[in-house]
Amino acid sequence: MKLSSFATPDTVIEKDFKDKVVVVIDVLRASSTMIAALHNGCKEIIPVTEIEEAVNMSKNYDKDSFLLCGERNTLPIEGFDLSNSPLEYKREIIEGKTLLLTTTNGTRAINMSSDASTVLICSMINIDATVDYIVDQAKDTIFVCAGTNGRFTLDDCLTAGAAISRIKKRIDVELDDLSIISSDAYDFSRGKIHERLRDTFHYKRMKELGLTADLDYCLTENIAPIVGVYMDGVVKRLDR
Amino acid sequence: MKLSSFATPDTVIEKDFKDKVVVVIDVLRASSTMIAALHNGCKEIIPVTEIEEAVNMSKNYDKDSFLLCGERNTLPIEGFDLSNSPLEYKREIIEGKTLLLTTTNGTRAINMSSDASTVLICSMINIDATVDYIVDQAKDTIFVCAGTNGRFTLDDCLTAGAAISRIKKRIDVELDDLSIISSDAYDFSRGKIHERLRDTFHYKRMKELGLTADLDYCLTENIAPIVGVYMDGVVKRLDR
Repeated sequence: MKLSSFATPDTVIEKDFKDKVVVVIDVLRASSTMIAALHNGCKEIIPVTEIEEAVNMSKNYDKDSFLLCGERNTLPIEGFDLSNSPLEYKREIIEGKTLLLTTTNGTRAINMSSDASTVLICSMINIDATVDYIVDQAKDTIFVCAGTNGRFTLDDCLTAGAAISRIKKRIDVELDDLSIISSDAYDFSRGKIHERLRDTFHYKRMKELGLTADLDYCLTENIAPIVGVYMDGVVKRLDR
Repeated sequence: MKLSSFATPDTVIEKDFKDKVVVVIDVLRASSTMIAALHNGCKEIIPVTEIEEAVNMSKNYDKDSFLLCGERNTLPIEGFDLSNSPLEYKREIIEGKTLLLTTTNGTRAINMSSDASTVLICSMINIDATVDYIVDQAKDTIFVCAGTNGRFTLDDCLTAGAAISRIKKRIDVELDDLSIISSDAYDFSRGKIHERLRDTFHYKRMKELGLTADLDYCLTENIAPIVGVYMDGVVKRLDR
């Protein structure tokens, strides 16, 4: 079983996703927000690339059945119901609803993975549940980090590393170079992830914007022990 | 002063190289071979992308003034004088000659950097000399790793890390995320670089091909204490 990692959607050079598991990671914050929302009972999430697309799509839904959600460059979108902070996705607000979500980097990574066997949404908050699923499947697995505006992003890479470090302790796997360094970087950072990310681009930007509670939430392991899957344009919670 | 790193030429998103230093790294083996050749007295190296281009270009040179050099997928090229093994570039063979060099990954990284202030050729064997030059220049510096067929490659990344780790101890620098992880990965691997690379793609391939002496040479720090610069299509030794 092979594990490969890519730092951004643009760098994915795998031609064939068939019969492979793709793991999409945008830990700050799109994948964390999606997992938090599924854990708190939303019906489904529809990731869309453009703001206008989300607005147009919303016209097909009954008034109280959906919410417009997302961010641009870490900031809320005017007129939208929720931003990209997982802390806003409380049960009383989202339960049973369809969330139309657009984010700067996260939705691109998801939409490119359409012919994979399974597409998983992975974050630190559901890391063990995701790993259990990958180990059970025992298929070649590709980690696609969202990155930030086309750049390598350490927070995503450490999240891939959190999964890979666990998987390689449980089953025999072959790792590519980015999987090796991601896994090792996670092992070196364990228990001091905030310190590790302190000088990184996205972490600093969120800190400057006062989003400390979001950082704490997104980087806490296993507070939403569910599996999120993307299929036919929709992200849902997997019933196991 | 900012340091940025890119895992392959394709991922470089800097638009503006003007007044910046670009550091090209293909430690296994193009940049090591170039530095070894300059250290052993070749006149100059002309990096070319295609095999045919090297052959055609050679027609402009006097019979004894040039050598055809390079590899494809780590293997020698039929009819060429030298492969991409730095150990072949002995003084008695190359002194005073122009080397027409084509390699799978290394030459692309060099040729893309044409409008930079300076383009340096960096390897472990000239790491301190390269760092001294970068620190003296005190300009924003971009590390461009060659990678392997478009993939992230740990050997190049650790070489960038070897430079970044030294620079940040000497002057105040701002690092992007890949520079942070590369530098830390180098620090963690110091003194055990072979062990660190044992399971990586390119290192394994060279080992399988019996190129152990090349691996030892390319990963030994500071055995060729010179600066190699690329300008107007030619790589030369910098006289300081």
